[in-house]
Amino acid sequence: MIKRGKVVIIGASNVGSAILNKITDFQLASEIALIDLNADKAKGEALDASHATSCIYSTNINVHSGTYADCKDAGIIIITAGPSIRPGETPDRLILAKTNSKIMGSIMTEITKYTKEAMIIAITNPLDVATHCIATKFDYPREKIVGTGTMLETFRFRRILANHYHVDPKNIHGYILGEHGNSAFPAWSTVNIAGMPLEHLDDCFNFSDKIERKAIEDEIVQVAYDIINLKGWTNTGIAMVACRFIKSILYDEHTILPMSAPLEGEYGLTDVSLSIPRMLCAEGVVKSFEVKLTDEERKLLYASADSVRKALASC
Amino acid sequence: MIKRGKVVIIGASNVGSAILNKITDFQLASEIALIDLNADKAKGEALDASHATSCIYSTNINVHSGTYADCKDAGIIIITAGPSIRPGETPDRLILAKTNSKIMGSIMTEITKYTKEAMIIAITNPLDVATHCIATKFDYPREKIVGTGTMLETFRFRRILANHYHVDPKNIHGYILGEHGNSAFPAWSTVNIAGMPLEHLDDCFNFSDKIERKAIEDEIVQVAYDIINLKGWTNTGIAMVACRFIKSILYDEHTILPMSAPLEGEYGLTDVSLSIPRMLCAEGVVKSFEVKLTDEERKLLYASADSVRKALASC
Amino acid sequence: MIKRGKVVIIGASNVGSAILNKITDFQLASEIALIDLNADKAKGEALDASHATSCIYSTNINVHSGTYADCKDAGIIIITAGPSIRPGETPDRLILAKTNSKIMGSIMTEITKYTKEAMIIAITNPLDVATHCIATKFDYPREKIVGTGTMLETFRFRRILANHYHVDPKNIHGYILGEHGNSAFPAWSTVNIAGMPLEHLDDCFNFSDKIERKAIEDEIVQVAYDIINLKGWTNTGIAMVACRFIKSILYDEHTILPMSAPLEGEYGLTDVSLSIPRMLCAEGVVKSFEVKLTDEERKLLYASADSVRKALASC
Amino acid sequence: MIKRGKVVIIGASNVGSAILNKITDFQLASEIALIDLNADKAKGEALDASHATSCIYSTNINVHSGTYADCKDAGIIIITAGPSIRPGETPDRLILAKTNSKIMGSIMTEITKYTKEAMIIAITNPLDVATHCIATKFDYPREKIVGTGTMLETFRFRRILANHYHVDPKNIHGYILGEHGNSAFPAWSTVNIAGMPLEHLDDCFNFSDKIERKAIEDEIVQVAYDIINLKGWTNTGIAMVACRFIKSILYDEHTILPMSAPLEGEYGLTDVSLSIPRMLCAEGVVKSFEVKLTDEERKLLYASADSVRKALASC
Repeated sequence: MIKRGKVVIIGASNVGSAILNKITDFQLASEIALIDLNADKAKGEALDASHATSCIYSTNINVHSGTYADCKDAGIIIITAGPSIRPGETPDRLILAKTNSKIMGSIMTEITKYTKEAMIIAITNPLDVATHCIATKFDYPREKIVGTGTMLETFRFRRILANHYHVDPKNIHGYILGEHGNSAFPAWSTVNIAGMPLEHLDDCFNFSDKIERKAIEDEIVQVAYDIINLKGWTNTGIAMVACRFIKSILYDEHTILPMSAPLEGEYGLTDVSLSIPRMLCAEGVVKSFEVKLTDEERKLLYASADSVRKALASC
Repeated sequence: MIKRGKVVIIGASNVGSAILNKITDFQLASEIALIDLNADKAKGEALDASHATSCIYSTNINVHSGTYADCKDAGIIIITAGPSIRPGETPDRLILAKTNSKIMGSIMTEITKYTKEAMIIAITNPLDVATHCIATKFDYPREKIVGTGTMLETFRFRRILANHYHVDPKNIHGYILGEHGNSAFPAWSTVNIAGMPLEHLDDCFNFSDKIERKAIEDEIVQVAYDIINLKGWTNTGIAMVACRFIKSILYDEHTILPMSAPLEGEYGLTDVSLSIPRMLCAEGVVKSFEVKLTDEERKLLYASADSVRKALASC
Repeated sequence: MIKRGKVVIIGASNVGSAILNKITDFQLASEIALIDLNADKAKGEALDASHATSCIYSTNINVHSGTYADCKDAGIIIITAGPSIRPGETPDRLILAKTNSKIMGSIMTEITKYTKEAMIIAITNPLDVATHCIATKFDYPREKIVGTGTMLETFRFRRILANHYHVDPKNIHGYILGEHGNSAFPAWSTVNIAGMPLEHLDDCFNFSDKIERKAIEDEIVQVAYDIINLKGWTNTGIAMVACRFIKSILYDEHTILPMSAPLEGEYGLTDVSLSIPRMLCAEGVVKSFEVKLTDEERKLLYASADSVRKALASC
Repeated sequence: MIKRGKVVIIGASNVGSAILNKITDFQLASEIALIDLNADKAKGEALDASHATSCIYSTNINVHSGTYADCKDAGIIIITAGPSIRPGETPDRLILAKTNSKIMGSIMTEITKYTKEAMIIAITNPLDVATHCIATKFDYPREKIVGTGTMLETFRFRRILANHYHVDPKNIHGYILGEHGNSAFPAWSTVNIAGMPLEHLDDCFNFSDKIERKAIEDEIVQVAYDIINLKGWTNTGIAMVACRFIKSILYDEHTILPMSAPLEGEYGLTDVSLSIPRMLCAEGVVKSFEVKLTDEERKLLYASADSVRKALASC
């Protein structure tokens, strides 16, 4: 029987350990197994986290390093493994795609030995390539695979606008869509703040410094590299994305969020994975939504599709 | 010095005690004083709640019954006192307005003996009358007074639509505006689900049973009476509204939510309190927003204004 | 398949509704079904609670009124049904025992039509009679049944001592054992505060007003009646007890807490249910602990056993 | 006026960033300023964390990099700065003490320019040297300074025993006392599990493999080096310790926990800082407790005092 409360995290470096710690903080599992090629790293992170669960305010979550056999009764498997972009690097995405799709292959070969029932959340970059690879090359239930995609860019977008207008980011609505990474774009036509569409905002807030869309579009992509250059890696934001997804799955929330999965005709696209709004619940990704986009936004989506397809071709 | 973590709740009956318990559950205060004309009720509720704070998972919140002197160092004061509508009753709102505005008067006379710095959250019905009365008849900083207003109807609206489309209510955006109670109305033009405007929803969800606006408008108002008739009173939903407001104040969130306060020219209206979107933070209600409404929605807002003014006139 | 996240609450009056609300506040279920002979009450409470789950901070928990068929895929079933003690009443416990054991019988008959896998938490009074009745008269797995018992008295004891010494109740260790209700007693020999045994406390705290054991023993029992007389019923403390148990089950915590179940030779006792320390985890009550008691404490335990047996005999 | 909800973290490396993230996860501040000599690191960590606060479940906490001027209205200041032990290193503690006491000096010089009202939590190693230095060499209110000390070893001790007996660590009571680091020791006489003293445990649990005290004593100290060797540093456990302290301060809990501060005659000791049980509340460290120790335990405490004094002498 599947233990709904068991999470397996594959990859114990910066992203994996940040996810481990957010899951324990938010009490989103009763058991967490951490797997890494570097078994010591997994063991060390699990040991350290296990001490935090001793606090009187903590739940007694069973945190341990593990092996792929832990997937057998897992409810959720999170894949963070694979090389990541380093400070100052301008990564050759095609090479990264090639490397990581191989890694995905070997990970999926291991996972499928033990389960085809767990929900798989892909985080490895290039995200849409990794997600597409997992979802299409293995005989795993399609609805059980999801990539975090532009949910992270959407968090960043909300924070950027929230800072600009000095407002709670929970009031910022709208999507960043497309490819996770360089070609992600804000679907401005879906954006509003607290029910006020973009064109009335500067009036409503009485702001003299107008919002500049181009600058924001650039910042959403650039801020990832900024963080990498400033602190050496990114992990906190993406860990929160993982927890948001886990919560929707765990509580069967039926939440609509931007996330990556193979397109099946939405916007006329197939044979590529991209982030569009999708509904997530205990059963997995049960629905996708073709929200109305302007012609320009559609073009950006198609550009994203081309970008991902190019990387896919190189695998 | 004001203790930001101290909350005073005036009124220990169904609503007051529900708020007490949600505040302790969500750890939104370090001290809570409960005041009621029926001192026994306040004492009993505080005593019972204090046992819950003994749990190893609970914070050691100081819950106790109190007196108006507790307002002296309170950060937040919540007014729930006053008679409420009973099952089967068709209340004469004008009479209720008269009674409760008197009660508000005596409560404010007491509060202002001790503080003019605490944030006051009004919950007593008729809500907009009570809020207007508190905000205008006493020399209390205007931005420090807010009525829960149509935030509750907005919660209900989200739940109704969420049930209809089987989607997370956190995906439902849009406002119920106007008077809390009979003349509250959905500002349909502000509504969208997960970025999809109302007119595309039935397509996007592929639903055969179309949404019927009139039925929903009626249900938003009617469901309050339904709950009163079914369980005898309403308290859980409104307690959550209070906690939502407290969180915005406590964390200085600058959240935009529908809430009641005197209008100061918004939509051409003055001398009446109604719910429109306003920004709440540690300093109180710092901004109001004149979101674009259709002509029909404006008419409904004016009708709400008339309804509240009539009640105000009777006080 | 059993849905671990589904809780069924039988009885929607003060205790049942308080539990419903604490479970949603603490996000301890993804679905909650509320059952009551008074279907309206269950419907009203569920409806009101469902509005609270619309808040942006809430999880989208599916709260609804239900029927016994909801037990089929429940992970946890909580029984709160049955008449309770009213203000001013000196209840004839034997009559209450008779009435409520009949009610337990009809409830268990319904439950066992649908499941023998859910964990059952009994709260109905007289608690030990109800627990014993459920555990022994139906062919239900013994480890899957537990009564909240003296966990509530233990919470109260901690609060009383915490108030006396002005210390966090989480620092108070030790058990109230025996019968839930009149014959519950503190096992003083197990008590310490922050590692300091009782006999050194007055020194360590430098307190002139010494602790009076007899007064505390009385207060632990009396405070329940005090609350009933002051507010009309008790529900907040017991709701927290239920949540503490649920958390241990849900997270497989293996927590040792005082709880009621049939004794199977512990302290030489059988054929009666009493609270002694027991270990609770996902599998249920997996172990009991015969903590060392003084002769006097043993006598009090035997007195509790006699008291419960007398009530059992009357059923 | 002091903003109770503002936390300043000095040092943005592994420990500082882990604390930042746990504080946001547990919503223990409305504003967090992160200071580091490496301003980029502070900026990067704050930026990444700010994206996590965009999630719909997060509070809108204002996370930013800052300067010492941020201390002006802070409620709590956490000092994590200073070089730390690296994998494989056998650090010369005297040299580390010298280096870090200089760093403490320059940090305190900066802090005291802006405030003498914030609570200061010291985490820099050697912990007791750093704490003593801060508490005695600057004219800062003594009760406002605390070192995390053996609270971390106490968490580890609980986890070790919890794993051995397969029980919730929240059931493990007792203290690790003395110096944080090599000479920390379990005060076995204060230890019990769920009310059962150590000598009855093996009976009660029916365990054949007896607990070996010496092995546990060694493991408590060794596990820190194990984690460093396995993952490169320690940060998760200590971040939880910081949050436990913050919670006691924020909610005025009056919790008794082992923590470091200058001894003022307890156990006949002065002129040295060590961890013994102390009471923490909004006002700071308001009381210390001379829990009864065996002669052997006293000797270990004196050995700890000698060890810290030696390091202090070298500064």
